[in-house]
Amino acid sequence: MSDQLITHIRKFVQITDEEAELISSKVTLIKLKKKSCVLTPGKICKANYFVVKGLMRLYFISKKDIEQITQFALENWWITDYDSIDSKRPSHFYIQAIEDTEVIALDQNIENELIAQIPAFDHYLRLVLQKAFTASQRRMEMLNNMTDEERYRNFSTRFPDFNQRVPQYMVASYLSITPQFISRVRARKPHIS
Amino acid sequence: MSDQLITHIRKFVQITDEEAELISSKVTLIKLKKKSCVLTPGKICKANYFVVKGLMRLYFISKKDIEQITQFALENWWITDYDSIDSKRPSHFYIQAIEDTEVIALDQNIENELIAQIPAFDHYLRLVLQKAFTASQRRMEMLNNMTDEERYRNFSTRFPDFNQRVPQYMVASYLSITPQFISRVRARKPHIS
Repeated sequence: MSDQLITHIRKFVQITDEEAELISSKVTLIKLKKKSCVLTPGKICKANYFVVKGLMRLYFISKKDIEQITQFALENWWITDYDSIDSKRPSHFYIQAIEDTEVIALDQNIENELIAQIPAFDHYLRLVLQKAFTASQRRMEMLNNMTDEERYRNFSTRFPDFNQRVPQYMVASYLSITPQFISRVRARKPHIS
Repeated sequence: MSDQLITHIRKFVQITDEEAELISSKVTLIKLKKKSCVLTPGKICKANYFVVKGLMRLYFISKKDIEQITQFALENWWITDYDSIDSKRPSHFYIQAIEDTEVIALDQNIENELIAQIPAFDHYLRLVLQKAFTASQRRMEMLNNMTDEERYRNFSTRFPDFNQRVPQYMVASYLSITPQFISRVRARKPHIS
């Protein structure tokens, strides 16, 4: 069940078959029904989640009682609340399955054991984190430098899968626009569906 | 000159004196006059910068011809454009000294050499990256969940140093508010100076 994770690791770093077996023996597969959560506010986040199949989102409920999505994770993406993991303080995020989803959970203590034995695994985790950080920087730039319509078109072009799989109100939340705005853009240009 | 970096590394991971010497022998100290840049748009970013003394900022010029600040770095913070480093594509960012500043430059090729020899150094770089990622997630949340005034007050409380050292228009840019707004808030509450 962890073949997909091992394949992903090997795209970034070299690990031996013994190391791959060790990693596989230490992680846990979790099958999640649509809408179920691996993290809810008030709990301390204790693991990092690798999406094998399906789609997850990280979000919080804003003061205005609106679901504010901070991150999506498709297949081969990692998702967690690093702030809660690092500080060991309760999270105020939900990490929820948008579809029926399978994730591999890497418990924080097990991660520490593994990276002590396999430095390449530590390096891999750094490289995926670097990609996540870059994506968050790019998103920040996009929020500051594009009109609502440009943001939506840019997102639709770069991630066509999302538009098929993610409810419109979630895309709107992620892009900080209203669902009504997306409907208007789609109505104007019927080729974007 | 790299004692400060070594002290910082040892807050996070254990390294031997020999490893510390190796790291020190491979990094470069750069003294920057106020307003000079280590990165400008069109150049490929090739190093990660550790602030020894002073203050740096990462920013781009938006389509509306406004300086949009994405990140500040005070003493003991790292700053770079990971997107450009990873992709080897030209950056569209400036990394500029706000004051006369001393930074330690860690060239990307040298970093690769060092982490091959010192896994703990790799782990350290991952931990500081994790902190940067967490900060960027928190900022995103702040932008979505606080009023302009709450953002300004939160920032002033958490980072009192910045308010003393950073020109008001830069704080405004970072918080996505107008300098005029900051002036109004300060005028209303004279104890915030």
